[in-house]
Amino acid sequence: MTTSRYVVGIDFGTLSGRALVVRVSDGQELAFADHVYRHGVITEALPGVADVRLPPDYALQVPEDYVDVLRFAVPEAVAAAGIDPADVIGVGTDFTACTMVPTRVDGTPLCQLAEFADRPHAYAKLWRHHAAQPQADRINTLAAVRGETWLPRYGGFISSEWEFAKGLQILEEDPQVYAAIDRWVEGADWIVWQLTGTYVRNVSTAGYKAIRQDGAYPSRDFLAALNPDFVDFVADKIEQPIAALGASAGHLTAQASAWTGLPAGIPVAVGNIDAHVTVAAADAAEPGRLVAIMGTSTCHVMNAREVRDVPGMCGVVDGGITMGLWGYEAGQSGVGDIFAWFTKSSVPEPYTREAQQRGISVHEHLSELAAQQEIGQHGLVALDWHSGNRSVLVDHHLSGVIVGQSLDTTCVDQYRALLEATAYGTRMIVETFNRAGVPVEELVVAGGLIKNRLLMQIYADITGLPLSCVTSAQGPALGAAIHAATAAGIYPDVPTASAQMGGRTRSAFLPIPENVERYNALYAEYVALHDWFGRGNPMMRRLRAIRAAAGQPDMARIAQ
Amino acid sequence: MTTSRYVVGIDFGTLSGRALVVRVSDGQELAFADHVYRHGVITEALPGVADVRLPPDYALQVPEDYVDVLRFAVPEAVAAAGIDPADVIGVGTDFTACTMVPTRVDGTPLCQLAEFADRPHAYAKLWRHHAAQPQADRINTLAAVRGETWLPRYGGFISSEWEFAKGLQILEEDPQVYAAIDRWVEGADWIVWQLTGTYVRNVSTAGYKAIRQDGAYPSRDFLAALNPDFVDFVADKIEQPIAALGASAGHLTAQASAWTGLPAGIPVAVGNIDAHVTVAAADAAEPGRLVAIMGTSTCHVMNAREVRDVPGMCGVVDGGITMGLWGYEAGQSGVGDIFAWFTKSSVPEPYTREAQQRGISVHEHLSELAAQQEIGQHGLVALDWHSGNRSVLVDHHLSGVIVGQSLDTTCVDQYRALLEATAYGTRMIVETFNRAGVPVEELVVAGGLIKNRLLMQIYADITGLPLSCVTSAQGPALGAAIHAATAAGIYPDVPTASAQMGGRTRSAFLPIPENVERYNALYAEYVALHDWFGRGNPMMRRLRAIRAAAGQPDMARIAQ
Repeated sequence: MTTSRYVVGIDFGTLSGRALVVRVSDGQELAFADHVYRHGVITEALPGVADVRLPPDYALQVPEDYVDVLRFAVPEAVAAAGIDPADVIGVGTDFTACTMVPTRVDGTPLCQLAEFADRPHAYAKLWRHHAAQPQADRINTLAAVRGETWLPRYGGFISSEWEFAKGLQILEEDPQVYAAIDRWVEGADWIVWQLTGTYVRNVSTAGYKAIRQDGAYPSRDFLAALNPDFVDFVADKIEQPIAALGASAGHLTAQASAWTGLPAGIPVAVGNIDAHVTVAAADAAEPGRLVAIMGTSTCHVMNAREVRDVPGMCGVVDGGITMGLWGYEAGQSGVGDIFAWFTKSSVPEPYTREAQQRGISVHEHLSELAAQQEIGQHGLVALDWHSGNRSVLVDHHLSGVIVGQSLDTTCVDQYRALLEATAYGTRMIVETFNRAGVPVEELVVAGGLIKNRLLMQIYADITGLPLSCVTSAQGPALGAAIHAATAAGIYPDVPTASAQMGGRTRSAFLPIPENVERYNALYAEYVALHDWFGRGNPMMRRLRAIRAAAGQPDMARIAQ
Repeated sequence: MTTSRYVVGIDFGTLSGRALVVRVSDGQELAFADHVYRHGVITEALPGVADVRLPPDYALQVPEDYVDVLRFAVPEAVAAAGIDPADVIGVGTDFTACTMVPTRVDGTPLCQLAEFADRPHAYAKLWRHHAAQPQADRINTLAAVRGETWLPRYGGFISSEWEFAKGLQILEEDPQVYAAIDRWVEGADWIVWQLTGTYVRNVSTAGYKAIRQDGAYPSRDFLAALNPDFVDFVADKIEQPIAALGASAGHLTAQASAWTGLPAGIPVAVGNIDAHVTVAAADAAEPGRLVAIMGTSTCHVMNAREVRDVPGMCGVVDGGITMGLWGYEAGQSGVGDIFAWFTKSSVPEPYTREAQQRGISVHEHLSELAAQQEIGQHGLVALDWHSGNRSVLVDHHLSGVIVGQSLDTTCVDQYRALLEATAYGTRMIVETFNRAGVPVEELVVAGGLIKNRLLMQIYADITGLPLSCVTSAQGPALGAAIHAATAAGIYPDVPTASAQMGGRTRSAFLPIPENVERYNALYAEYVALHDWFGRGNPMMRRLRAIRAAAGQPDMARIAQ
């Protein structure tokens, strides 16, 4: 009898990091542990700096919180698995993206330096930091005017969430912090840097978030036209050797071994994006499988053999998901976030009390009640833009809408309308792919929302697609583990590892023809709202501007 | 020393009736008593008939509940006033409108007959019964096509709330009930009939609600074109001697004396509308004073010397408010109703608990928090159409909208946005009057919402008008009492009585120029939404139709 070998997959999410111990031979998950970031998402005040109030749309993090996941979650998971740490042969990670860490040349985050601790721009900018929209707007306008060839690869729009917009915001709002940044590092790569002592850039975030296409970043000319002081942004802060997904980025350092309790010297896989590794966990690398990772937000990823321009998609990158295929990414910036906001802000006491008495969550309670409704009975249609719109409009200044309220509208009605709104948003993305010649044949769902059966049926009915569910409850961490096994040389490539270690339940939910028909009528209303508020009419931008003018703190003032 | 003389004003509202004892010489209010209707507003099931579920938009009442107000509220108020009932020299009433009672020839409501007790159409239809919209639509289309001269007097639209639409609905959905109706009576006149034993039609509801213009109702030709069986609707069920406001309709019967404890034989004023008598209470009969009675809904009434066509207003009637002037009426079908719906449906427990701990209402608590906001800070704009739109769109199939929600939107934000939405709705009405050459110079507010100081300031800021407040807390009941004093011959006419017995606090709230400026920008967004959803786009009607198709009970089925 041979000893089993294991890998550890570590998934760095928005609020916490999770470590998962997986058997290499068959993907069996032995144990996992979760560690909540001590500082969470910083949206109002910097830690220990009470007098600096953050402007709207800020979302910062403290990188030391990521290291704590190595310190606490990894040893806890290994202990819970009951294995000998010496049998762990590799580590893989995945990370939210685009989450950016401003560092010195040795990787030290600026916010850890006393001189910058009270400067918002010295902190990590979480993916959902949406305050760089003005910079993103200028990047988009300039790229369109100049006919930059990379622009269509991103559906015609660069997001305010990405490296260039966020970097330019720092330059323009706090030039001192900008000058002090030696490296502008993806969280995905920063954590691998902590594990291996080496800064290696993964091909995926370089492509999706740093506008690297056909081996090159945007030109110095382009950067200078944006802002003369931005001319060396790529050369000074961005450029770094690129590595393929599933490769080894280096080996676990003594320091990282001390943090994690894992053997020093074992291979560490190249950094990766949480959504993208889920394709491996689902064993869904084959073209036409749209993998939707549904949590606070939804990320959609899909492989195809050809490169096509898909309007409003987030990006297409050669080998961005799986070596040898073009990886497409699209997204919805608010999904579970919207449901959570609603249960917190809009559900009256009788419902929350009844949920408590029944020993279930408010989500479960409202979903059960909503499941009793006929389609369209609530008379509502909503836009799922409470956190802006990533695909296909790429505008974080958009906001939520609900239409059709009457004096008998209940919170159950509105909750169901919001569930449906996010499904309409997914259908909008599916249809955009289809029209661009990148056909979607199957919807593969992963993430925390998978357990809501009503939501899953709504997605099948609204998209009209068969819906598969990732088997693992820890999709991203399993995907990271699959990359670890590949980096450790156990499997020749990620798809082969996926076939052994990952999987999905096919046709877990099938569209019901009668429901599809009914939702077609409601989707037409969603499209009308989508086009009027999203394309025809700058009302939401004007409301934002009015809101910003109405006594919100001014960032320029804070930076001084 | 002479003995003081008194009148009793009785205000029949949506949920209860209130009796007020008033001294004739100076309008001093001695005491009032409120009696809640036992059956309230019936929207789901008929009393004692559990198996008949009502369709959406139904709002029925039981007329016997109105008589209970005579039995209980009147004696209680007189007793509380500590006066000798023999010193009461007159009675006046006002009523919600258009609230319709189907009766036999002696005034007996059909729903009191055993054979009709299980038939929804045998009950009184409250003003906010909105299920006759299809009939209203047909009346409007046909009147426009035929060029009926009365149509412009109603802003181009007859409401589904009024006598003809509601009557036609009965004919078409339950012909047996229709055939059994000898008289189709305004609640305002039915209650006077109960007091005097005589059915006299008041000029006001005949004009505003029964399309009586220049002495005539719609023609037999017109009725036949709507539905051949409707041809005798006016002759058989509507026509009745007309009396002016402030006149005596008759004298208190022995039966009514027994109910009320008031002396038999005292004069009873002609029936009147709750909103319209408030003009007397406010002493605001002079042209240019727009009196807004703000409660569950808002009714706007104003006198002018000339008759003009004002688009989307509810009606203009010669002597409809005050003898010798043209009385204009406009309205918002949901105001306090919307705020009440919101506090019930959308406010989470921490806010309701804190309000309870502070010993104040949820409305007061949310208003206090909302008052701390800068204008526009919430980033929201809403449409106040949760109960449809009376003026200026006259469409009860419209519904509520809220735009601009983000993940930090609170219930306070949304509550304030709804307060503002109703003020935008009033501004829309004011501007429509101004454009039509009927200038509004002052906003006079009465009704339950007057005590919300934030709301009052918002109305002043959004309309840009000086805002006066009716002095009496019982505006309609005082107005009814003023009409009683006139009917009793104490004063020569209602304005003279008003000057003695009524009044208002002028310039109680003045527009703040900086706020007016800020709200102008937000009002522009309201107008854009108003025009798109209300004029450009039948989305809300389609959502209604989808909702109706989704398993709502079918009235045709119920009636069989």
